[in-house]
Amino acid sequence: MSIIHNPEIIGKKRRLASLSETSGRFSMLAIDQRQSLRKMLSSQTGQAPESVPEESLELVKRVITSRLAHKASAILTDPFMGYATTWEFIPGSTGILLSLEQTGYSTVNKGERLTRLLSDWSVEKALLAGADGIKLLIWYDKHASSAVLEHQMGLVQSTGEACYRHAIPFVLEVVCYSSDEISATGPEYAQKKAVRVIDAASEFSDPRYRVDLLKLEFPGNLKYVKEFQSRSFHGGSVIHDLSEIRDFCRSVNEASRVPWVILSAGVEPEEFIEAIQLCNDAGASGFLCGRAVWQDVIRHFPDLAAMERYLETTATGAFDLILTANKNAVPWQQHKHFK
Amino acid sequence: MSIIHNPEIIGKKRRLASLSETSGRFSMLAIDQRQSLRKMLSSQTGQAPESVPEESLELVKRVITSRLAHKASAILTDPFMGYATTWEFIPGSTGILLSLEQTGYSTVNKGERLTRLLSDWSVEKALLAGADGIKLLIWYDKHASSAVLEHQMGLVQSTGEACYRHAIPFVLEVVCYSSDEISATGPEYAQKKAVRVIDAASEFSDPRYRVDLLKLEFPGNLKYVKEFQSRSFHGGSVIHDLSEIRDFCRSVNEASRVPWVILSAGVEPEEFIEAIQLCNDAGASGFLCGRAVWQDVIRHFPDLAAMERYLETTATGAFDLILTANKNAVPWQQHKHFK
Repeated sequence: MSIIHNPEIIGKKRRLASLSETSGRFSMLAIDQRQSLRKMLSSQTGQAPESVPEESLELVKRVITSRLAHKASAILTDPFMGYATTWEFIPGSTGILLSLEQTGYSTVNKGERLTRLLSDWSVEKALLAGADGIKLLIWYDKHASSAVLEHQMGLVQSTGEACYRHAIPFVLEVVCYSSDEISATGPEYAQKKAVRVIDAASEFSDPRYRVDLLKLEFPGNLKYVKEFQSRSFHGGSVIHDLSEIRDFCRSVNEASRVPWVILSAGVEPEEFIEAIQLCNDAGASGFLCGRAVWQDVIRHFPDLAAMERYLETTATGAFDLILTANKNAVPWQQHKHFK
Repeated sequence: MSIIHNPEIIGKKRRLASLSETSGRFSMLAIDQRQSLRKMLSSQTGQAPESVPEESLELVKRVITSRLAHKASAILTDPFMGYATTWEFIPGSTGILLSLEQTGYSTVNKGERLTRLLSDWSVEKALLAGADGIKLLIWYDKHASSAVLEHQMGLVQSTGEACYRHAIPFVLEVVCYSSDEISATGPEYAQKKAVRVIDAASEFSDPRYRVDLLKLEFPGNLKYVKEFQSRSFHGGSVIHDLSEIRDFCRSVNEASRVPWVILSAGVEPEEFIEAIQLCNDAGASGFLCGRAVWQDVIRHFPDLAAMERYLETTATGAFDLILTANKNAVPWQQHKHFK
């Protein structure tokens, strides 16, 4: 009789299957925003960010989840304002990814960023609550002080161990920054960004972190690509050409020893679709995006009927285009890590 | 901030959603047969049951799972010969129900039956391996000796507690028997059977067992129903009329404080479809059936191509008819237990 020698390995893969489409492609929708959603609501309502009531955030999370969850291979949400009030809207066939970290970061040493875990929450509790995967966001500047690096890498490692013990996939989001720079979106950052994303992929796919899937930034900035000068999302300056961008994407894929997906960082759908196709062509396994799909819902807040209408028409249309663009994603089962 | 006070409750419901269709109806396929499958293969090959190699059982489980799992809301399988060799064929959108008990039973006191748990296996291991639910089969004769009853009920209770601790749905299958009777399928048993199934529903839906879903036998026998005398499955004798059967089904539903599904016990699809509709009309939440869908695949063993052809045509057709008959199932979320 065959014995299940390693239920942990089967469990991880089984839960990765729950997070992905049947094809093995990831088409995951994020609605775990807290601070950024608060700011969006603040702009819309004129309230100070800290005065935006939690009920407003919960309402937005609920209406987005109820209208879009069925189209996603998984929903990424935060446990308290998100999952606790939206879980009933997530179909059984859509996977659940729960975030582990507090929103934002603590700043130390003039601009170095520390990720903090949510209190009263853990990998164990997420599994108990029905999660199919755990997401941790880590701020990463390889030139940060060794105390900060140790803290950040220690968090990744202990989360990786807890996920391994419980046979639950570990999705690590790495957001690169540099404490001595002001803008992470301007043209002067675009070139540096590619190098940092490649470094991050190499570092955090090391087996000691036990990461199963990396959620990465786009390695470069499509707003400054020569071939996209006529596109609505173009930013004016030209920093890259497309072949350089393709090289960056390939380098990310070569650097990463585990499957990876691309995040949207709130760019418009038209730009995100280009990003997805470029990454998937280089070997990515799909996307995990949020604001690129639903951000304009905030413009209709607090008119619930208008929010629903926007989600059912414009946002659904954008998501459908993104899903079509994702057809060339590499199924995670075909990644060298799982062969 | 809303806190998840009871992740266990959300987790159980979330996993019930994984086991059911999006509608909340259960359309689950069982392929956890071991002893009965061995006997079927023995009849087909002429080998003694104990000489049928495990590879033959695994092959049958694999081909059935690969051809039918995508149509079921969940697959019930045994961990070792089943799940260990078939898990890669189960889509992420189909739930996983793993059995906890050894096949068959141990006999004590002249015909009293004891359920035994699989060694090297537990609720914890099943969860680790990716199960969305646990199934335990319990043999039940309310007139058995108190030692046997204590053993059986103790098993149910300890399984219920382990499932509660791990927030994983507990599906209890109750098979009624009487140690002083020879046939459980003949006409003389049909009337007694209804009373026993009703008793079982009442006993095992008691909150102390923490059962989330009962898997029950049909309360009566459609082979002996007056109105079905012209049907191919009719057995000749007439024991019930249809209104009596409807009363039995309603009594099961009233007796059960938790949602319930009907099992097929290997009857032909035509008969099982009548059973499903009668039970669902009375308040059942769908079915968990195996042999009614796939049993004739054994006639083609070991011709793999013929087995695949049979599953893709005849068995798929039968399953489609059964799914259509299941449209009147009561979604589990609408059951009084979850309101």
